[in-house]
Amino acid sequence: MKIDKQHIEDTNQKSLDSHRASFGYIANRLTQKGIEVDDVVQKLADFQVAIPSWALGAGGTRFGRFGFQGEPRTLKEKIDDVGAIHALTQTAGAISLHIPWDLPEDYKAIKQLAASHSIVFDAVNSNTFQDPKNAAVSYRYGSLSHTDEAVRQHAVEHNKKVIEIGNELGSKSLTVWLADGASFPGQTNFQTALNQTQKSLREIYITLPGDWRLFIEYKPYEPNFYSTVIQDWGTSFMLANECGEKAFTLVDLGHHLPNTNIEQIVSTLMLKGKLGGFHFNDSKYGDDDLTVGSIKPYALFLIFNALVYGMENNPQNPYPAWMIDASHNIKDPLEDIIQSLEAIQEAYAKALLVDQKLLNDAQQDHDVAMCQEILQEAYRTDVRPLLEKSRLQHGGALHPIKAYRSLQVRKRLIDERGMDSVASGL
Amino acid sequence: MKIDKQHIEDTNQKSLDSHRASFGYIANRLTQKGIEVDDVVQKLADFQVAIPSWALGAGGTRFGRFGFQGEPRTLKEKIDDVGAIHALTQTAGAISLHIPWDLPEDYKAIKQLAASHSIVFDAVNSNTFQDPKNAAVSYRYGSLSHTDEAVRQHAVEHNKKVIEIGNELGSKSLTVWLADGASFPGQTNFQTALNQTQKSLREIYITLPGDWRLFIEYKPYEPNFYSTVIQDWGTSFMLANECGEKAFTLVDLGHHLPNTNIEQIVSTLMLKGKLGGFHFNDSKYGDDDLTVGSIKPYALFLIFNALVYGMENNPQNPYPAWMIDASHNIKDPLEDIIQSLEAIQEAYAKALLVDQKLLNDAQQDHDVAMCQEILQEAYRTDVRPLLEKSRLQHGGALHPIKAYRSLQVRKRLIDERGMDSVASGL
Amino acid sequence: MKIDKQHIEDTNQKSLDSHRASFGYIANRLTQKGIEVDDVVQKLADFQVAIPSWALGAGGTRFGRFGFQGEPRTLKEKIDDVGAIHALTQTAGAISLHIPWDLPEDYKAIKQLAASHSIVFDAVNSNTFQDPKNAAVSYRYGSLSHTDEAVRQHAVEHNKKVIEIGNELGSKSLTVWLADGASFPGQTNFQTALNQTQKSLREIYITLPGDWRLFIEYKPYEPNFYSTVIQDWGTSFMLANECGEKAFTLVDLGHHLPNTNIEQIVSTLMLKGKLGGFHFNDSKYGDDDLTVGSIKPYALFLIFNALVYGMENNPQNPYPAWMIDASHNIKDPLEDIIQSLEAIQEAYAKALLVDQKLLNDAQQDHDVAMCQEILQEAYRTDVRPLLEKSRLQHGGALHPIKAYRSLQVRKRLIDERGMDSVASGL
Amino acid sequence: MKIDKQHIEDTNQKSLDSHRASFGYIANRLTQKGIEVDDVVQKLADFQVAIPSWALGAGGTRFGRFGFQGEPRTLKEKIDDVGAIHALTQTAGAISLHIPWDLPEDYKAIKQLAASHSIVFDAVNSNTFQDPKNAAVSYRYGSLSHTDEAVRQHAVEHNKKVIEIGNELGSKSLTVWLADGASFPGQTNFQTALNQTQKSLREIYITLPGDWRLFIEYKPYEPNFYSTVIQDWGTSFMLANECGEKAFTLVDLGHHLPNTNIEQIVSTLMLKGKLGGFHFNDSKYGDDDLTVGSIKPYALFLIFNALVYGMENNPQNPYPAWMIDASHNIKDPLEDIIQSLEAIQEAYAKALLVDQKLLNDAQQDHDVAMCQEILQEAYRTDVRPLLEKSRLQHGGALHPIKAYRSLQVRKRLIDERGMDSVASGL
Repeated sequence: MKIDKQHIEDTNQKSLDSHRASFGYIANRLTQKGIEVDDVVQKLADFQVAIPSWALGAGGTRFGRFGFQGEPRTLKEKIDDVGAIHALTQTAGAISLHIPWDLPEDYKAIKQLAASHSIVFDAVNSNTFQDPKNAAVSYRYGSLSHTDEAVRQHAVEHNKKVIEIGNELGSKSLTVWLADGASFPGQTNFQTALNQTQKSLREIYITLPGDWRLFIEYKPYEPNFYSTVIQDWGTSFMLANECGEKAFTLVDLGHHLPNTNIEQIVSTLMLKGKLGGFHFNDSKYGDDDLTVGSIKPYALFLIFNALVYGMENNPQNPYPAWMIDASHNIKDPLEDIIQSLEAIQEAYAKALLVDQKLLNDAQQDHDVAMCQEILQEAYRTDVRPLLEKSRLQHGGALHPIKAYRSLQVRKRLIDERGMDSVASGL
Repeated sequence: MKIDKQHIEDTNQKSLDSHRASFGYIANRLTQKGIEVDDVVQKLADFQVAIPSWALGAGGTRFGRFGFQGEPRTLKEKIDDVGAIHALTQTAGAISLHIPWDLPEDYKAIKQLAASHSIVFDAVNSNTFQDPKNAAVSYRYGSLSHTDEAVRQHAVEHNKKVIEIGNELGSKSLTVWLADGASFPGQTNFQTALNQTQKSLREIYITLPGDWRLFIEYKPYEPNFYSTVIQDWGTSFMLANECGEKAFTLVDLGHHLPNTNIEQIVSTLMLKGKLGGFHFNDSKYGDDDLTVGSIKPYALFLIFNALVYGMENNPQNPYPAWMIDASHNIKDPLEDIIQSLEAIQEAYAKALLVDQKLLNDAQQDHDVAMCQEILQEAYRTDVRPLLEKSRLQHGGALHPIKAYRSLQVRKRLIDERGMDSVASGL
Repeated sequence: MKIDKQHIEDTNQKSLDSHRASFGYIANRLTQKGIEVDDVVQKLADFQVAIPSWALGAGGTRFGRFGFQGEPRTLKEKIDDVGAIHALTQTAGAISLHIPWDLPEDYKAIKQLAASHSIVFDAVNSNTFQDPKNAAVSYRYGSLSHTDEAVRQHAVEHNKKVIEIGNELGSKSLTVWLADGASFPGQTNFQTALNQTQKSLREIYITLPGDWRLFIEYKPYEPNFYSTVIQDWGTSFMLANECGEKAFTLVDLGHHLPNTNIEQIVSTLMLKGKLGGFHFNDSKYGDDDLTVGSIKPYALFLIFNALVYGMENNPQNPYPAWMIDASHNIKDPLEDIIQSLEAIQEAYAKALLVDQKLLNDAQQDHDVAMCQEILQEAYRTDVRPLLEKSRLQHGGALHPIKAYRSLQVRKRLIDERGMDSVASGL
Repeated sequence: MKIDKQHIEDTNQKSLDSHRASFGYIANRLTQKGIEVDDVVQKLADFQVAIPSWALGAGGTRFGRFGFQGEPRTLKEKIDDVGAIHALTQTAGAISLHIPWDLPEDYKAIKQLAASHSIVFDAVNSNTFQDPKNAAVSYRYGSLSHTDEAVRQHAVEHNKKVIEIGNELGSKSLTVWLADGASFPGQTNFQTALNQTQKSLREIYITLPGDWRLFIEYKPYEPNFYSTVIQDWGTSFMLANECGEKAFTLVDLGHHLPNTNIEQIVSTLMLKGKLGGFHFNDSKYGDDDLTVGSIKPYALFLIFNALVYGMENNPQNPYPAWMIDASHNIKDPLEDIIQSLEAIQEAYAKALLVDQKLLNDAQQDHDVAMCQEILQEAYRTDVRPLLEKSRLQHGGALHPIKAYRSLQVRKRLIDERGMDSVASGL
């Protein structure tokens, strides 16, 4: 399945006048305030977010899963799905694979398919939290942190294998999310587990190709409910420092204790040059993996404000890898991702509108009320016409959800794949 | 101190053209979507929020308090402060007194002063969480829930006295916030404390004038750190039901455990006709009492969406009493309140833009993605021109904070009251 | 599989002397303090906790499940498992079935089997949060709260069917845990959902046999991540009141927002005669469903202190139904349950040791430090000899976990059922 | 005021027989399990906890403070109070001063007085979160992190002064608790604030006497309610590393987000040799500063289990400084501290009983149920006779609270100091 560019253009036609009027209005307003609107629109176009292969089918909870019709059955179909999203949004120009769920058989064909959708391969993800059928060892009691060297070695080898696969595809980074931990007090020795993890990560690290990066993700709980080996940014940062300069911390929005100030963590990491990647989602209670921006859009804006500041002021930090990491339990997964991309772009655009010069002045003056006014001036602006403009300039849809529906993408996927298709890896 | 209407008009002059352009743009857009813009603007003008007398001076924490210059030293000066806020915002047409911090001496003069500012007296608040100097009994171990009848009676009498004072001023409701609880397991008997509270509230209730209402506030913790007698909406609702039809639950945004879905509580209470009042503020960690909308503006919008729905569909619920209940530790208290009022009006305006018909259709269709689109369509709209219009029509300032500053209100207050004035009650 | 009583007795032999010494010591100490030790031991023996049929196999998370060898494949095998636990602990004299996971085929045989293990049938549980294969309707968007009458009716009928099944087996109560809610703002209309739920519950309620009770469970989130229709005790209490005198609230320890004071909720419900049942487990982050007492044993003691108080002072409240509701992701499920039972009995025993007379006096005197001393005097007592005595008197094991291991129960289950058996319903 | 040793001995007389019986019982039991009881008792005697000078008067909340009679009015009286606690408990052999609240006038006299109570001077604490009267600069907008160099320098100088004072008294460490942060998004630049803090700490660090240590405390929120510069252990650890080998992280139990696994943080810090100090208290909601062990005694035990492990296995970590940091809003402050000390000793004693060899074996075997059994075997043991023995051997009271009351300590303090005395610094 591939969406025809012309069809997108056709759906844009009837909204073009409205878009031009609203863009004209807002561009005029912003220009009066000294903002280079073209720059903002260009930055929006440049901002590409990877889609993880596992988010294209329906997700679920421990209480069950309600499948979704037309789910992609193969890696090729997953790439097609990302291609469809990218065609509409022009923001999803990358896919992030999960091994062993997405083992490519024919690398060349896969790369050609991705290229035909203008999609590149972002960070590859290893899996040491589940046991494949007939596995030689079990990750039930851990992987990189396991007390048994054989299990650790198995997990290290798996990660090396994932790097090889990624290398074939053109990926440049490995993301390690480690579920290792304990569900009960006393189950593990914290210090041993940390030391083993450090050693295992180091073994993986030294096999990284020269232009690769290692992203170390952290998470306070789930699937373990007492402790997790890499429980917070401090632990990840420490491990990354001990690995070397190609190792970085990866921040996932949902992987924090209640009320954590995430934008401050982002700022600290960028100051130290150690923010490697960022996973977007939203949540109200735990790692709920909801649509980005569906619960706390202002927090997302504040995080983007920190990210924009870091991208402009912290040359010591490499350009971060962006990915959506959400679970689509109840919505059409593709619509869910399109909504997430819209929310990301919106938050980014608003952060770009923050008058950093004025903000800095107000901070120096301790004019706290004015600091808030400056942030909210940007946040309250309706930036949707800027997003539309950016998409329009690159052949995307003015209104991606509407286009997705009017082009009957889901219906076409079902026709192609059937009602009962189940995404591989789920 | 009183702000001259003409001076406000003067400050509006230079922004008028800009306002007209932006209002024209948004009014046109909304009208195309079938929204009655005049209705929205009128509703914004009708929405009046009470300012509590204790929020006009600087607040503090247990670690100390940094005072603010020009704080109101008397009830009269507090009314002047609210008058200044109301003159600029046209949204603060009421004051909520706290007894014994605001004991009026000359009722007639106080009422005349308030009337001269177009301010009415909203709910009166009793205080049984502190001991006045030389008090006959101590509230150290509780008040309405105390095991000792003498203390309970003292607290009941105080509440009756507060009603009398409120009655003289034209108030129509009493808000009871009960700090009673325990800081340690075992300190109190939960059932006894609840029974005593019920009995005490009933005694207060039966003395309410016929057209009055009793608001029962709840809070999970602070100043007690193990339990609070009225710890949640369920307890307040139960107590209100047992008092009678003039008793209601009062919701304070900051009085919830982490992650509580407050809009659902609001909906339930309005369905049952028991939402009496609402206290606005914002918070990230606990009852932080920050500026409304400064942390979670989308949550505020969702709450307003529930409130608007209830006001339109729940005739069984009386029109709620609105109040800001924030603490201004670091900003100019008046600027802080003005920012809060702006955030409230913004959330209200956006909630008024929600297409309830479309939303209901999408809900019936279980079109979850569309439900979100509909809410976010309203939320993403820049409604500031509507707020400006509403203020402008009633003699308020297009940009209240800017006007407050250009009119040098704080400087005038300091000139009048001195650098070291301390608000009574603090 | 059935554990021979004689075998248990044999395992007890070598610990008998030690037990007698420790029991003698503690009995003497307690007697000196005026405690009737025999009464305490008798109460421990009388305290029976239901085991849910779904907790006998390994649980899992959305990230996967590591199975456990020798899982019970049928209802009969599940009853055998509970029988084994009961034989060892003498505390698990009931099983709680989940329909449709445990549909009995031959009622008479099932009842005879249970009787042979001295096990009765506790509350039956309905399931409207998953779709059985080829279901006529889907619960994807709700069940008792669904907007579509056909789905609601289907869910109501299912509950009626569950009552019928329970009635055949001798159950006397139905537990309704409703997963209904929303994962996104706007997805549902709170008021409609609540009204529909009320109506559906009422329909179920009126078909209850005369000596039955309806337990209405609440939970703030999961599997829905924005709102849950019955989100807290207040909502459950309100619904139970509207159903009638045979409807009650059911409290599950893990179904609360962070930091909730659960013992206060228990006290309020018992005061109002509305605590119907209680589900035991433990947790650190959310509804983690860990072994009872493994994380917060003092909180469990405080809850038991409230339960003991209610059982002694609130004749208006019926004797509650007790059940363990935990998930055994990493331990042998039977060992996990045995540990839970030990923790429950321990907390209960300690609560029975609280000197209620002294506590009441200290509360009257506001002697807060002494209130704490009294609770901790009970809590710090090592009550294990009392538990041993209670088990010994009824043929149980002095040390159930040790006996379980020395009798090689798991090995026998694997021999009987195989390494790869999977519990039905998982 | 000084408690006569003979009087304590007298109060012990009537409980001696009971103590001997219970100690004999438990010592016998433990010896059978291979535990060196004398070692445990000796370790308890060696474990000394500092009492902070500010915890000897009543604490309060932002809603007010209920004073306590007989509060110490001067540093001398504070030392007397700690002396009384130490005489009874033999566990409080140190005091921790807070400057400027406890400025000594006559060093020699102060040192002699402390020596007469067998009390040493533990870490000294600086205060840059309040403005002294007529201060040259204000800490309203920060201190060590302030944007204004003059304020930073003032705060640095204050810390240097505190070191000098501590040096005179024999202290060997400085604790820096930095309240700096922001109450609103945008108020500060995270990176600038962190850099300035680093620079200021470094300036303080380089003036440390050769045998001193610098403790850097962290806290997520309060008194700032949006962000705190040193918000978590990761930030403190990073700052300490950047200062040098004499800089350490200080952990305060109450300074964590909900559900944080504190024992894991402790383990990580000790592994890295960076745990400098530990502040004890307890809490249910936030930094509630309640009596140690009054809410979560099992969590305290787990933390002590990590501390004991670290003290035995991490020579790279210096012996940590222990302090109680609680607020006594409702109990007699001295009784409150005595209860805290009892809870600390209890948790320590139980942690000492953990069979580390068996635990390690069970961890290697992934015998999760057994790991729990081993921890709970220790936790469930009633260790009070061991604490009694330890106190008895050093002249303390068998039952400190009872002795405190029977010796009428509070009455004597009131006689000496009056009913309305207020502790300096409050």
